[in-house]
Amino acid sequence: MRLLLINGPNLNLLGSREPSLYGAKSLDSIEIELLSQAKKEGVELDCFQSNFEGALVDRVHQGIGSIDGILINAGAYTHTSIALRDALIGSAIPYVELHLSNIHAREHFRQNSYLAERAVGVISGFGPLSYQLALLGLLSYLRQQQSS
Amino acid sequence: MRLLLINGPNLNLLGSREPSLYGAKSLDSIEIELLSQAKKEGVELDCFQSNFEGALVDRVHQGIGSIDGILINAGAYTHTSIALRDALIGSAIPYVELHLSNIHAREHFRQNSYLAERAVGVISGFGPLSYQLALLGLLSYLRQQQSS
Amino acid sequence: MRLLLINGPNLNLLGSREPSLYGAKSLDSIEIELLSQAKKEGVELDCFQSNFEGALVDRVHQGIGSIDGILINAGAYTHTSIALRDALIGSAIPYVELHLSNIHAREHFRQNSYLAERAVGVISGFGPLSYQLALLGLLSYLRQQQSS
Amino acid sequence: MRLLLINGPNLNLLGSREPSLYGAKSLDSIEIELLSQAKKEGVELDCFQSNFEGALVDRVHQGIGSIDGILINAGAYTHTSIALRDALIGSAIPYVELHLSNIHAREHFRQNSYLAERAVGVISGFGPLSYQLALLGLLSYLRQQQSS
Amino acid sequence: MRLLLINGPNLNLLGSREPSLYGAKSLDSIEIELLSQAKKEGVELDCFQSNFEGALVDRVHQGIGSIDGILINAGAYTHTSIALRDALIGSAIPYVELHLSNIHAREHFRQNSYLAERAVGVISGFGPLSYQLALLGLLSYLRQQQSS
Amino acid sequence: MRLLLINGPNLNLLGSREPSLYGAKSLDSIEIELLSQAKKEGVELDCFQSNFEGALVDRVHQGIGSIDGILINAGAYTHTSIALRDALIGSAIPYVELHLSNIHAREHFRQNSYLAERAVGVISGFGPLSYQLALLGLLSYLRQQQSS
Amino acid sequence: MRLLLINGPNLNLLGSREPSLYGAKSLDSIEIELLSQAKKEGVELDCFQSNFEGALVDRVHQGIGSIDGILINAGAYTHTSIALRDALIGSAIPYVELHLSNIHAREHFRQNSYLAERAVGVISGFGPLSYQLALLGLLSYLRQQQSS
Amino acid sequence: MRLLLINGPNLNLLGSREPSLYGAKSLDSIEIELLSQAKKEGVELDCFQSNFEGALVDRVHQGIGSIDGILINAGAYTHTSIALRDALIGSAIPYVELHLSNIHAREHFRQNSYLAERAVGVISGFGPLSYQLALLGLLSYLRQQQSS
Amino acid sequence: MRLLLINGPNLNLLGSREPSLYGAKSLDSIEIELLSQAKKEGVELDCFQSNFEGALVDRVHQGIGSIDGILINAGAYTHTSIALRDALIGSAIPYVELHLSNIHAREHFRQNSYLAERAVGVISGFGPLSYQLALLGLLSYLRQQQSS
Amino acid sequence: MRLLLINGPNLNLLGSREPSLYGAKSLDSIEIELLSQAKKEGVELDCFQSNFEGALVDRVHQGIGSIDGILINAGAYTHTSIALRDALIGSAIPYVELHLSNIHAREHFRQNSYLAERAVGVISGFGPLSYQLALLGLLSYLRQQQSS
Amino acid sequence: MRLLLINGPNLNLLGSREPSLYGAKSLDSIEIELLSQAKKEGVELDCFQSNFEGALVDRVHQGIGSIDGILINAGAYTHTSIALRDALIGSAIPYVELHLSNIHAREHFRQNSYLAERAVGVISGFGPLSYQLALLGLLSYLRQQQSS
Amino acid sequence: MRLLLINGPNLNLLGSREPSLYGAKSLDSIEIELLSQAKKEGVELDCFQSNFEGALVDRVHQGIGSIDGILINAGAYTHTSIALRDALIGSAIPYVELHLSNIHAREHFRQNSYLAERAVGVISGFGPLSYQLALLGLLSYLRQQQSS
Repeated sequence: MRLLLINGPNLNLLGSREPSLYGAKSLDSIEIELLSQAKKEGVELDCFQSNFEGALVDRVHQGIGSIDGILINAGAYTHTSIALRDALIGSAIPYVELHLSNIHAREHFRQNSYLAERAVGVISGFGPLSYQLALLGLLSYLRQQQSS
Repeated sequence: MRLLLINGPNLNLLGSREPSLYGAKSLDSIEIELLSQAKKEGVELDCFQSNFEGALVDRVHQGIGSIDGILINAGAYTHTSIALRDALIGSAIPYVELHLSNIHAREHFRQNSYLAERAVGVISGFGPLSYQLALLGLLSYLRQQQSS
Repeated sequence: MRLLLINGPNLNLLGSREPSLYGAKSLDSIEIELLSQAKKEGVELDCFQSNFEGALVDRVHQGIGSIDGILINAGAYTHTSIALRDALIGSAIPYVELHLSNIHAREHFRQNSYLAERAVGVISGFGPLSYQLALLGLLSYLRQQQSS
Repeated sequence: MRLLLINGPNLNLLGSREPSLYGAKSLDSIEIELLSQAKKEGVELDCFQSNFEGALVDRVHQGIGSIDGILINAGAYTHTSIALRDALIGSAIPYVELHLSNIHAREHFRQNSYLAERAVGVISGFGPLSYQLALLGLLSYLRQQQSS
Repeated sequence: MRLLLINGPNLNLLGSREPSLYGAKSLDSIEIELLSQAKKEGVELDCFQSNFEGALVDRVHQGIGSIDGILINAGAYTHTSIALRDALIGSAIPYVELHLSNIHAREHFRQNSYLAERAVGVISGFGPLSYQLALLGLLSYLRQQQSS
Repeated sequence: MRLLLINGPNLNLLGSREPSLYGAKSLDSIEIELLSQAKKEGVELDCFQSNFEGALVDRVHQGIGSIDGILINAGAYTHTSIALRDALIGSAIPYVELHLSNIHAREHFRQNSYLAERAVGVISGFGPLSYQLALLGLLSYLRQQQSS
Repeated sequence: MRLLLINGPNLNLLGSREPSLYGAKSLDSIEIELLSQAKKEGVELDCFQSNFEGALVDRVHQGIGSIDGILINAGAYTHTSIALRDALIGSAIPYVELHLSNIHAREHFRQNSYLAERAVGVISGFGPLSYQLALLGLLSYLRQQQSS
Repeated sequence: MRLLLINGPNLNLLGSREPSLYGAKSLDSIEIELLSQAKKEGVELDCFQSNFEGALVDRVHQGIGSIDGILINAGAYTHTSIALRDALIGSAIPYVELHLSNIHAREHFRQNSYLAERAVGVISGFGPLSYQLALLGLLSYLRQQQSS
Repeated sequence: MRLLLINGPNLNLLGSREPSLYGAKSLDSIEIELLSQAKKEGVELDCFQSNFEGALVDRVHQGIGSIDGILINAGAYTHTSIALRDALIGSAIPYVELHLSNIHAREHFRQNSYLAERAVGVISGFGPLSYQLALLGLLSYLRQQQSS
Repeated sequence: MRLLLINGPNLNLLGSREPSLYGAKSLDSIEIELLSQAKKEGVELDCFQSNFEGALVDRVHQGIGSIDGILINAGAYTHTSIALRDALIGSAIPYVELHLSNIHAREHFRQNSYLAERAVGVISGFGPLSYQLALLGLLSYLRQQQSS
Repeated sequence: MRLLLINGPNLNLLGSREPSLYGAKSLDSIEIELLSQAKKEGVELDCFQSNFEGALVDRVHQGIGSIDGILINAGAYTHTSIALRDALIGSAIPYVELHLSNIHAREHFRQNSYLAERAVGVISGFGPLSYQLALLGLLSYLRQQQSS
Repeated sequence: MRLLLINGPNLNLLGSREPSLYGAKSLDSIEIELLSQAKKEGVELDCFQSNFEGALVDRVHQGIGSIDGILINAGAYTHTSIALRDALIGSAIPYVELHLSNIHAREHFRQNSYLAERAVGVISGFGPLSYQLALLGLLSYLRQQQSS
């Protein structure tokens, strides 16, 4: 089983900026922890980050045929990108939407997600742990699908 | 550390009704699994379910002074109960909001949550696993608070 | 065949209060008339009234497995209770929504019904006769279902 | 006592089109059944159908002075015709609004009715039985008016 | 003359929770002060608090025939309970709506009150004094009614 | 100079129905008075009334090439007919919109007029005099156009 | 009979500014013409213009007891002044609202009038003639009131 | 294969009115061109135009059983007629919606189409060519249906 | 301690106009009663009324440095004046908003108050007593501030 | 004459994904067919696809001075990209907007197009044929422009 | 060249109140600085401040024929005064809108400006420097107009 | 001190396209003028333009640690890019938002800016001078910050 972790715009800044909002851990650390967790679970994990909407769309496309599930923290594109929604749905790869901060406690325009409706599930507010919970949730879903 | 699991209206029907939406597991099974998980984590867990908004408010109040964190699947009251929101905030007990189904994939009136804004985090869509992820998320939050 | 008549908040006041709006007949008289009508139709009828949202939800749950159809005048909860909607749908018991007064001639916030979308049908404005028409409508629906 | 049954646009198609939505009974059959029911009740009943908004308005006008009550299934004009509303109110003839299907379970634009606010009552969702329930409701209302 | 003081959900927490928002006085103290004020004014006062919407509705009903006026701080139900509005209007007992905090300075969803439209008057923002001002306002209204 | 007076749905009922709203004068009397006023002004006047939206559109079309100005009380079609708006604009005949009652004092859905934006002017609320004021206003406009 | 003509903000600019929108006639000329028309009708007419909302309110108050009807072109205050609405209603003097230009053909925020709902009638779009039509309409209304 | 071309209100004015918006070609010319194109494609084509909503509904009904596809430029009824939508859906005849002008470049109230949701496709903005493109689109759709 | 009572537009009419809405007491009587109450409380009270928004703003400014608290019934400016809100906030003088009538029972546009959010508290619906309750409320607030 | 075909995000997936929605034809096949059709019409055609909003903007810019018309299926960017709208308008190159599926039959957020208002015309719902119809429409427009 | 600086309500408080929002500089200082800047630029500058909407309107009128450009910080009237908008447009004097604070970072009701649409430009957020930038911007615009 | 000038989508077209809207000056000329102005002020200035949202985000990130302030004309991304907002806020670099044209005089969808709320200030409508005013405003802000 092979999974893909996608991080969207500004998540490359993690750890250095606005630690009160996003925590002090860098994206590198988060990815390393998640890779380790994936290894324990016996699955492969690819990591990708970009600030370009088009690059995220491209990366989802490349996963068709090779990737079994996606963990996505699309950052600001969560709220503005129908293209990313279309890519995820078009790829037919199950995905979990996740956020570091609790988006319900933030600006009004962050209440809408173009991705959530078609996601397996959504997790927000647990900081870096959101990634690990999302991985657990996605694996559980995929294994359930396999066994049915 | 002592936690409280609160389940709101209609969740007592779990397992017998609408399995396509909520899964085939009963609330009892879910509670038993969660109690076992809590035990492993070395924390106590109380379980409570009611179809009465007032009873849920009362139960939150009773937790003041004895409960360190709440896991809450408020069901339909998520979307209509300001009283429950006030109880949770008034109790000053950290809580995690969780849902079995992905509420973003359901009716428009289920998109609004009175509880989410002040929750530690929100988890929805993973079926019974949502409870376990929520427990992990809540424990992580509480331990981080203790250590800081 | 066994039916359940559910009356929601404030309907226990019928006959004594606001007769210009709700008529001069008490809830007791209405229930007696309906029981008599049910008897003629050869069906059993249980009657229940409560001002508690949770009690209405509980009563719907108790009907699972024993009740074939529900007549419900949910009063104010028609417009505010998603929990009751969930209970009715979750119970999978067909129901008819009814109102004594014509709710379209009243306040704006009474135009929305959480129950109507999934009801067999809706009847409003005929005073106590609304109950009898609802019973006719529900029976017709159930007999059609049986014969198909 | 003389009543008028008005059917609006597309109801002439009944029985031949979209039986899953509107049932398999033709408008003719419905009218015949209703005429028979009216006869039993000792009242006269005129039947009228048109796809023209103006013709429906004209027919209501013609009823002034000769018609005591109206049963109206205005079809799509329920949601768009203020002219028909004005005709009904201007005629001062009491009327009952009825629908074959449960309009609350259909498109958003069918939730608004220009006629409902001033109707005696509204019945929707019972198929052809809606007509008979409406007749019962209208007669009850008219007889109550006469006796008061 | 006999009055009824109704306190809604979470007001039993007064004094112990969120003192910056609601003040440091307990509900007991407030009731004792108000009873004393009532005594001076030569009127009886019953006090009731519940976190159950249905219990508040029931208590209003019980006041019919024995209670001349109601002071109500409905807390969160102010904004969500049409049932309570119906109970108050149905009881035909004049009532004053009051709030400890200035609800206009709080969340958007607290700007709407289902009770205010039909109240004698509304008082908010004066802390425990709101109760005393409300009592003065209600008594003045009732005495004016008696003398007219 | 030749003018056309168009009256829309239900205006044929004038004088016999709802005199408190529309006055006691019949449409015939209004037309006769207006014809007399037109004669004094030295202009021809055609009168037309229909309850059919399509007939009103047709009548406007027939005026192309022969009619210099239109007085229109479109009744309920004022608020619902884009077809009539298109006919009036398409005909390029200047028109004045008029109403017997003050539409701003009536239902919310009567506040919108599809005709007003492109009218020479709008007059409402003066009862039958609205027609005479509208004639004065239209003539003034047309004579000003001729002289410029 | 004594009438009052009130002109609101910026109408003192008439004739010198934006002739394409408001025409080339000055407010003085309009007032002189209207005074002459009033004389012919045998009524007195006072004229008042101010750019101050408060001054318009004051002038309406001064008319209580001496003025029988008001013609008001409130300009921009039509759309923003509840104070002026209250003054007119509080004075209980019948008034006609008028506008030089067709306000329905202008900006969206000019579609709302705080004055129209309680006016005898509304006239807009006929340039300076709007004043004369309004005078005719107001006189007709007042004479009808006197004779009834 | 037999097709039907339906033109709605005001389209009979084509060529003589507002050529800047709708072009200089008459409806006759457009129909003649389309008949010729239909002949080349080996299909029959009936042409119908009316300014009456009811007549358009009737014409659609008449097509049941004899017409295989409809080209419809419903003009203003596109935006206001649910009856026409119901007729088209009720008839179960595939249809293409077309417009001469680009309706997205016009008034706000022309942005909504009651017909588009259930159409095979929509074409707007190409002047008379819109008809020919619509014919090509409809034929392609029908032939694809036949062959599948 | 020195307080200021501000009355806004049309409140000078009190007692003579619309007694059913505002009561039969003149503003003079209200001010005299309030001055007497202030004397008993040992505080000075200035009274001011104007129909000019600018004059109210000016009066608030003049209070800076000499006035300790403001009682304000801003009448219609409550709903339209951001300038008055800015003056009150800018002056940093605590104020209580009051209304004679229950504004929640009146027109929709009276539901919004620009002043309420930053007021100490709000009182509405008790007629002239509203002023006295407001004085009590303001004094209590100011004395609490002094003692803390 | 030289034209440009622009395809936006996810259209590179055509043929392999969601054939029920977008058909089984690949983008390559569509481009080849369109190139052949262009050849027959005697015009050159460039083809471009990208998932990057910025790349689409750049490509439009490059067309200035060399491209006479654009066919654009902007996919999801139709609904979110003001930048693309600005590029198209800024380039002053006439363009036709096209869609494979009928966007009016899809999600609510696909009803808005930032491109449609300024397009020559819009075509949606005909599958791959949409491209050919769009080419016909664009050519017709350009030839008409040349000849005028 | 002669310019006019207009300051609206509450700006006379500058320097003494809410320095965290508006800075510590008085209006006098700001005017003196701007007069000095104007002198350097070789233009005359008149300064005016009032808390009366009507006075601002009057002052704009007085500028007709003598003033070449206006700098306006209308304070709260920016958001509520259509009269001021009309005065500025009616005067045909070019104007620049300016604000000390960044109004986009403040309350929701400060996001709308009635003046901005017709202004030369808008500057907000730079404190007293906003005045100087606005002067530069206005002068540049006026000189460009003169030279063209 | 080192500043960064960022220009968003389509601004590379400046000077060649839509001069009536954006002026005849190229982006090169604007940058050269601004570089010269920066030199005079003794600050460094980097210039960057891209049509890619992701590239703008990247460029902001690169400025962290080296850039003291940003001048940004984000073009269309002003209204659609939350990612850019997040980048600017995440970078903690103060920025001024600027626009060549007065965006308040343009389409409705250009009234919203995701960047304005957190900007130092906003300048729009002065053509190329907007850049110079923005530079002055930003420098003034930064120097004030340094000195405090």
